[in-house]
Amino acid sequence: MSRAATTYRATRGDVRTVWIGRVGPELDGGRFPVKREVGAWFEVTADILREGHEALTAVLRYRPVKDTEWREVRMEPIGNDRYAARFRLEENTRYVYTIEAYPDPFRTYTDDLRKRLAAGMEVTSELLEGAALLRRSLSRVGGADRKRLEVRLAEFDAAATPAHRTRVLLDDETAELMAGYPDRSTATRYDRELEVVVDRPLARFAAWYEMFPRSQGTVPGRHGTFKDCIARLGDIAAMGFDVLYLPPIHPVGRSFRKGRNNALEAGPDDPGSPWAIGNEHGGHKAVEPALGTLEDFAAFLAAARDHGIDIALDLALQCSPDHSWVREHPEWFHARPDGTIKYAENPPKKYQDIYPLNFYCRDREALWEEVRSVVLFWVERGVRIFRVDNPHTKPIPFWAWLIAEIQAVHSDVIFLAEAFTRPKVMGALAKVGLTQSYTYFTWRNFKGELIEYFTELIETEIAEYFRGNLFTNTPDILPAILQQGGRPAFLMRVALAATLSSVYGIYSGYELCENTAIPGTEEYLDSEKYEIRVRDWQSPGNIKAYVSRLNRIRRENPALQEYRNLRFYQADDDNILFYGKMTAARDNAILMAVNLDPFAAHSAVVHVPLDDIGVGPDETYQMHELITDTRALWRGPAHRITLDPAVEPAAIWVVRRWARREQLFDYYR
Amino acid sequence: MSRAATTYRATRGDVRTVWIGRVGPELDGGRFPVKREVGAWFEVTADILREGHEALTAVLRYRPVKDTEWREVRMEPIGNDRYAARFRLEENTRYVYTIEAYPDPFRTYTDDLRKRLAAGMEVTSELLEGAALLRRSLSRVGGADRKRLEVRLAEFDAAATPAHRTRVLLDDETAELMAGYPDRSTATRYDRELEVVVDRPLARFAAWYEMFPRSQGTVPGRHGTFKDCIARLGDIAAMGFDVLYLPPIHPVGRSFRKGRNNALEAGPDDPGSPWAIGNEHGGHKAVEPALGTLEDFAAFLAAARDHGIDIALDLALQCSPDHSWVREHPEWFHARPDGTIKYAENPPKKYQDIYPLNFYCRDREALWEEVRSVVLFWVERGVRIFRVDNPHTKPIPFWAWLIAEIQAVHSDVIFLAEAFTRPKVMGALAKVGLTQSYTYFTWRNFKGELIEYFTELIETEIAEYFRGNLFTNTPDILPAILQQGGRPAFLMRVALAATLSSVYGIYSGYELCENTAIPGTEEYLDSEKYEIRVRDWQSPGNIKAYVSRLNRIRRENPALQEYRNLRFYQADDDNILFYGKMTAARDNAILMAVNLDPFAAHSAVVHVPLDDIGVGPDETYQMHELITDTRALWRGPAHRITLDPAVEPAAIWVVRRWARREQLFDYYR
Repeated sequence: MSRAATTYRATRGDVRTVWIGRVGPELDGGRFPVKREVGAWFEVTADILREGHEALTAVLRYRPVKDTEWREVRMEPIGNDRYAARFRLEENTRYVYTIEAYPDPFRTYTDDLRKRLAAGMEVTSELLEGAALLRRSLSRVGGADRKRLEVRLAEFDAAATPAHRTRVLLDDETAELMAGYPDRSTATRYDRELEVVVDRPLARFAAWYEMFPRSQGTVPGRHGTFKDCIARLGDIAAMGFDVLYLPPIHPVGRSFRKGRNNALEAGPDDPGSPWAIGNEHGGHKAVEPALGTLEDFAAFLAAARDHGIDIALDLALQCSPDHSWVREHPEWFHARPDGTIKYAENPPKKYQDIYPLNFYCRDREALWEEVRSVVLFWVERGVRIFRVDNPHTKPIPFWAWLIAEIQAVHSDVIFLAEAFTRPKVMGALAKVGLTQSYTYFTWRNFKGELIEYFTELIETEIAEYFRGNLFTNTPDILPAILQQGGRPAFLMRVALAATLSSVYGIYSGYELCENTAIPGTEEYLDSEKYEIRVRDWQSPGNIKAYVSRLNRIRRENPALQEYRNLRFYQADDDNILFYGKMTAARDNAILMAVNLDPFAAHSAVVHVPLDDIGVGPDETYQMHELITDTRALWRGPAHRITLDPAVEPAAIWVVRRWARREQLFDYYR
Repeated sequence: MSRAATTYRATRGDVRTVWIGRVGPELDGGRFPVKREVGAWFEVTADILREGHEALTAVLRYRPVKDTEWREVRMEPIGNDRYAARFRLEENTRYVYTIEAYPDPFRTYTDDLRKRLAAGMEVTSELLEGAALLRRSLSRVGGADRKRLEVRLAEFDAAATPAHRTRVLLDDETAELMAGYPDRSTATRYDRELEVVVDRPLARFAAWYEMFPRSQGTVPGRHGTFKDCIARLGDIAAMGFDVLYLPPIHPVGRSFRKGRNNALEAGPDDPGSPWAIGNEHGGHKAVEPALGTLEDFAAFLAAARDHGIDIALDLALQCSPDHSWVREHPEWFHARPDGTIKYAENPPKKYQDIYPLNFYCRDREALWEEVRSVVLFWVERGVRIFRVDNPHTKPIPFWAWLIAEIQAVHSDVIFLAEAFTRPKVMGALAKVGLTQSYTYFTWRNFKGELIEYFTELIETEIAEYFRGNLFTNTPDILPAILQQGGRPAFLMRVALAATLSSVYGIYSGYELCENTAIPGTEEYLDSEKYEIRVRDWQSPGNIKAYVSRLNRIRRENPALQEYRNLRFYQADDDNILFYGKMTAARDNAILMAVNLDPFAAHSAVVHVPLDDIGVGPDETYQMHELITDTRALWRGPAHRITLDPAVEPAAIWVVRRWARREQLFDYYR
């Protein structure tokens, strides 16, 4: 598909008449696509130049990857030999783009002629040159335009004065005719076809909710079912979530099944870890019988769709010892010298209930193919989102291959990387195709570290390929701030997650402010990874109304639906984080202030970026705080605010210009 | 030669086991080589990683382009999944480099075994695994090492205890044996072979002197000769110059020859512009008879060599109307509608004595080939440096082709681009091969603009391919600061040029402080572009001793011979520029302060970067000022200095640690 770049070499008589360089966006010299979403404008810029003062024309060429026809849009100079053009990304597919540029001898000519005329120089010979240029272009011009050009030439030939001839050559009609039929025989094509993956908007803007189906029943000790999950949908939709993510729903292994709180021995009623996938009822293509049947799952999917909720499944590529792959394909696993299969370990930790797969095994092509068929199995049943368990323990080329294979036929499939690992590994996974990724947000609590981390994620090249999905908590991570900070911390952290990124999530129980950990760890005590938990979803102190409001504010304010528009602003207290998001058109400007200390009220003078918002320094503007629905008039950039975590740890303002002034009325102008 | 990068794709079962990315240096995704000089260490870094905790080995592979054998040096981790290695550039040639990395299963194994042992885990099976790894590697091990490995295995098999077996697997000898014979069958090669052009050191460190041979005679009105030039060499060498650049030495055209001060009509004795090349005595491969013969030129070259001076010729690709190319190849030029050849114009300016060449003409291959033969003509006569006249008015691919052709056979040839044009065009010319370039230094006079410009040149990626040669003046540019500032300005500007860059130059007359311009212009009055000028090289007020001293200071201080080590430091007055250069080993630290105002003394508190230099905050250090050869003891970073342009507008200190302390003596330790 793509033309390869090689080290720049020239041949004798080389006619690459135009230099095209430093195309942006271009990731790692064109090795990786950038990411965008349907509906966005895609802007491309480049250094485009020729020697001397020669004029040139440049066009941006693009096409959805499946099309063979290029579309073109003309690039305009934006200063310092840089050109820009943009087009709208209309399809959920991969687009290819490149640049072509060619000399514009007629414009070079008219620029020169104008200079000569301005200097009062004699131009008889130059006028003949212009006519010759017109005449030469005739062969390229067809139809009515050819007629028009012939008329221009006849007028030139019949003209009685040089002034008349000059007029023919320099008028708008001639310029337009000549611009319309350029000679592209010596056009230079950029040495590379670049790519942009255009995901559906949900890849950028979504609120995720994670829950264990086993815990959705209402009778303590009884295994929840897909039917119970259907009953929960209304509540989840009411909170405003778009994506509902389920840990593995497959049959749970029996051998070495873990008991409550990760005990080595399971009791007779313990459901085991759902990540120990596979037993006699099937493996990655089956559902745990206690949850229901594939038909029940289909009904659940349909019900979710009715609530406007997308279901995300867990893609956990590992097996319980009881998985059929273990019997049928022992070569897909790691073997000990005695021939037995190795369980997962991270010394000194042991996971006897889980066998990792060997993605490099001799029979790896069959294994990779089987994984592909697993994903397609669920895609064909209507699942379009996968949360990928530990992608960083599998080969990077495996993900590149798998995602390309799936998205080639189902471009709407979204993959969220659960990659809590080293930053470069997270980056590589994103570059090869994972749509979104978990982040270090979970462990970034204080002002300096939040600003540093999000500035890196949002304002550097990382944002071209890495979309951070901010989870407040996960079944594996109950952060210290939530353990210690209680309800104010829960409010504060979800407000941060929902506003720092356009895509964020919570793991259920968060809305109930559950925060009991195994002491000294980030592990939940009595985790539903190993047991069934039945909760009172209306328990006192829950923050469901708060979460609902946050999600409504996100839906009502387009600025919060963008990912790359986060900017930090000045607040003169280390506990107060002050930041904003704005639409490109500046018709929606949101400011946020969050007290990062869950234990005490703090106040700060915040500096509103009036210039960015488009408010004059002496203009009064309205600050409409959306959590409490209160309004205030401000004037000038500096204002003191106070945030009490016991009341409202966060404020979200929409800034409204105070448009009603007599100068804005029609009769005033 | 180079393998092309393509968009990253993976196949089913892909075994690129290691991820290699963001290699540095890599210019524009590997499209262009970076530049270095013989003798320099070349450091390469990259993100290199694998999934999980798997160990890997990475090697930097490199070779001079003419070699087929790769050399290798192991890369070491420097944190955050980044690796580095370096090698010495020993030849004046183009080097190719890339990276290869492969899994290190034995190291993965020993890391894991150590963790298990530390956790007190049972390791019987793991020990057998280790022995199996040893046994499998036997096939790769030859000679004495094979014997050694067999002995290790025998010891393992005979060992009575697990502890003994463990010792065999974990000791240094086994580690060394296993590291020496890696399995590279699944090695991953970086997708690109990158290049570095290694020029001779003169490309980076040189002082240039430009002079018109016609003006080197001693009798007013008599045309100077190569013999006169020989007589001048002692003076030029005494001033410390390394390169002597001559404007075109070819026969000067007669048609439309320009008179004094660019007059349209030449007088009978006027020599004409040397850039109007060619007459009945020959063209680009001949010398102007008034200067002498080719033999005289050869003698001059030899004499220059004896003085340690390299000669640079002007490569001005244009013709006088009397050049033989005009008769023999009229198709190489631009024609008017009436068939006559166009002279050069930049409306309203006309250069009737010069015909530009048409590098795109139908017969361009022959034209390009002829230019190549011109360059080779002079190269074969011993010329190894060309100052390229107006390269920005010729096609960029033409330069790429020409320079590659020449350097493929004569890698020691240096091309200096006289590209006073838009920054992106200057950059493109440097990227495709021009060794050095003129800069905007000529017009950067004040503190802010100097810091901004040189920070961009030196501290951004530009420094990877663009070497700025700082000329104080040229036959076309007598800057306002010299016209107005007089002798103090001449001292100040040459001190800046000689210390801001490792490569700089002056055009003769500078040392005599010649500064009479055509009013309102930057043109010299009575320019030797159009006439013969005979000067008194010892005229009063000359600054030859100053220039000599600057060049001696440059030769004696390695820090001033580097290009990329310029750093600006704080001085609290807008007229005082304070900066420094240091060797990587910090054994030569130079600080400069320059008063940029030629009209008045200024003083400033300067802040010495003690940390960078390696001087403690309470340590006394010696500041040895090299222009006046005076010394002072300083302590702490902040010191007030005063520079009076009427006395010394610039100071150049070598910073010396005050090493004589009892703690440094051997007996103290």
